[in-house]
Amino acid sequence: MADSNQGTGLQLRSLVKAGGELELSLAKVPIPQPAEDEVLVRVEASPINPSDLGLLLGPADLSTAEVRGVGEDTVVTARIPPQLMRALAGRVDQSLPVGNEGAGVVVEAGASPQAQALMGKLVAGVPGAMYAQYRAMKAADVLVLPPGATAADGASCFVNPLTALGMVETMRMEGHTALAHTAAASNLGQMLNRICLKDGVELVNIVRSPEQAKLLTDAGAKHVCDSSAPGFIEALIEAFGATGATIAFDAIGGGRLASQILTAMEAAAVRKAGGAFSRYGSTTHKQVYIYGGLDTGPTELMRSFGMAWGLGGWLLTPFLIKIGQAGAARLRQRVADELKTTFASHYTAEISLAEALQPAIMAGYNKRATGEKYLIRPGKA
Amino acid sequence: MADSNQGTGLQLRSLVKAGGELELSLAKVPIPQPAEDEVLVRVEASPINPSDLGLLLGPADLSTAEVRGVGEDTVVTARIPPQLMRALAGRVDQSLPVGNEGAGVVVEAGASPQAQALMGKLVAGVPGAMYAQYRAMKAADVLVLPPGATAADGASCFVNPLTALGMVETMRMEGHTALAHTAAASNLGQMLNRICLKDGVELVNIVRSPEQAKLLTDAGAKHVCDSSAPGFIEALIEAFGATGATIAFDAIGGGRLASQILTAMEAAAVRKAGGAFSRYGSTTHKQVYIYGGLDTGPTELMRSFGMAWGLGGWLLTPFLIKIGQAGAARLRQRVADELKTTFASHYTAEISLAEALQPAIMAGYNKRATGEKYLIRPGKA
Repeated sequence: MADSNQGTGLQLRSLVKAGGELELSLAKVPIPQPAEDEVLVRVEASPINPSDLGLLLGPADLSTAEVRGVGEDTVVTARIPPQLMRALAGRVDQSLPVGNEGAGVVVEAGASPQAQALMGKLVAGVPGAMYAQYRAMKAADVLVLPPGATAADGASCFVNPLTALGMVETMRMEGHTALAHTAAASNLGQMLNRICLKDGVELVNIVRSPEQAKLLTDAGAKHVCDSSAPGFIEALIEAFGATGATIAFDAIGGGRLASQILTAMEAAAVRKAGGAFSRYGSTTHKQVYIYGGLDTGPTELMRSFGMAWGLGGWLLTPFLIKIGQAGAARLRQRVADELKTTFASHYTAEISLAEALQPAIMAGYNKRATGEKYLIRPGKA
Repeated sequence: MADSNQGTGLQLRSLVKAGGELELSLAKVPIPQPAEDEVLVRVEASPINPSDLGLLLGPADLSTAEVRGVGEDTVVTARIPPQLMRALAGRVDQSLPVGNEGAGVVVEAGASPQAQALMGKLVAGVPGAMYAQYRAMKAADVLVLPPGATAADGASCFVNPLTALGMVETMRMEGHTALAHTAAASNLGQMLNRICLKDGVELVNIVRSPEQAKLLTDAGAKHVCDSSAPGFIEALIEAFGATGATIAFDAIGGGRLASQILTAMEAAAVRKAGGAFSRYGSTTHKQVYIYGGLDTGPTELMRSFGMAWGLGGWLLTPFLIKIGQAGAARLRQRVADELKTTFASHYTAEISLAEALQPAIMAGYNKRATGEKYLIRPGKA
């Protein structure tokens, strides 16, 4: 505490240079002084989520990564394919901090009673710039972790939990009664499966391998469709018929999966109606939201699903704005209450800030492999 | 009137046979007896809209068309490619009447005062099955044509006028302030241009040839972008920047045009904001509604437009249900008031029911060429 308003802390920075180079480094930045309504957090754990990788690595070719320096002075560079630079115009030559969320200890607090009440507490937050040793946050925005929870328990308690809860909330708000999810064996997907089992919401889990299907079935999932299996479309139609799912959240984005989902939902709706032919298709509205881009290729829609359909982007922040402060607080409270059960995250590696800049480790967390998840420990030497 | 509850009338029928054949014929059906709240209309004019062609011709290969019989006994058949039969399963072996809308004279009326008040009036309606000599309609659903209007003036006063008005209404209901339209030189597009000019709504007209661009510019359109011209995308970005259009209605469906529209809207939003980089793109919601399928190929989305976007189907009937009876009545009244100005339709050919079954004429109306529009005259010999 005493040294928090002097001294400096490390902060991971991502820089895209106009010449087509990505540079990651550790900046030594002054430890922030919390404003009246803020607290200063010593960050103890921050996860590498898929949603962090875009800002962290951009579309750099990691096979070209080169390191110079060691420890705090580590700098890693990698080439960015020239044709991909256009999309990065908005961030060129800006040294950007990274890391959406994390947890740590409040080591200093602003004068407000709300801030003062947090002194010494273990809290989590999602202010961005969390791949750092210190971060100031609004006292109103932090979540005090429940007794017995560690920083690792709370590090991922915003992005994935609120996204999974947001999917179920969106389902209800838009008048659907069951939902589907792709890349469903992900950390987020497992969480969504636990939420749906607990809440009695029917969920169609769409995965890409028998191993992922088994993981979910073992976790109690009732409806699992494996796109690598023969008869996938027929299995989808049956699962949509059995559950009535008419909304899906898609982490993949590219290819024909969204189109297949809409087509299978339409086929299930037509079977259920069993009625007269309409060349405009059923009147059942079918919705797919793309919230990730595991496949960055184009989305191809065959439009073989009538006229009552929608496809769109889905993002956590606008959703939280839409449900308002009270709605967001209700979801946050649920996350805190079920932190070690429904919303438990498991990490396969814990790394320091400097280790996050080592090419072999970068290749590991950039694989986005199901079941692998990295946790940055900014206090680790 | 005297003979309307005896005798028969001709009704065009479209039949898809399980063997993969389309058959069009003229059925001799009993002239309907209007129910208490109905009127019987002697149909004088009914247009062939793009929205009629799907039901009328399906995906038949007209180059294989063969005719037998003449006059009222004309029957035309054509092959349907086997791979397209699956999508037609719902209509196989059903002899279906065709023709969404039209106008004619009330020759008999049910007992209700509302129906009786329509006796002898020239009315328009959109009950379906209008490629026929007689059609019973709900009295509450017909539009009495204004003095001086002919059946040809009123034949197309539902589908295109209400669709064009529905686009502007949808724009307002969803919080947008300007809109874009593709295949914008169509009969519908010209109507939309006149509505927007009259109402002071900014419209970006997207066309596919210099001739179509000239047609709209000559009609007073301010923003016309020709996808066949070099610099099309930049022209789109500038038009979206100038108008603030963030919603588009797309008649084409297939290919990359919807994606290009979203990308250009996003680029215009980013230029306007001129702010910090966000890898999730702007917060401006961009929407494209596909309401037609001039290109039946897949829709390809490059997803280079951030996360705040939507794509969906748009159809007139659910829109009219959404705005309710009062809303629909308001739009219908406007159509009646401006029938010979804003909502004027022009026909390039008038044909009898039997002529609609002649292959050379079928090829003509199936071209869906901009500026060509066919009117069926069921009373014509």
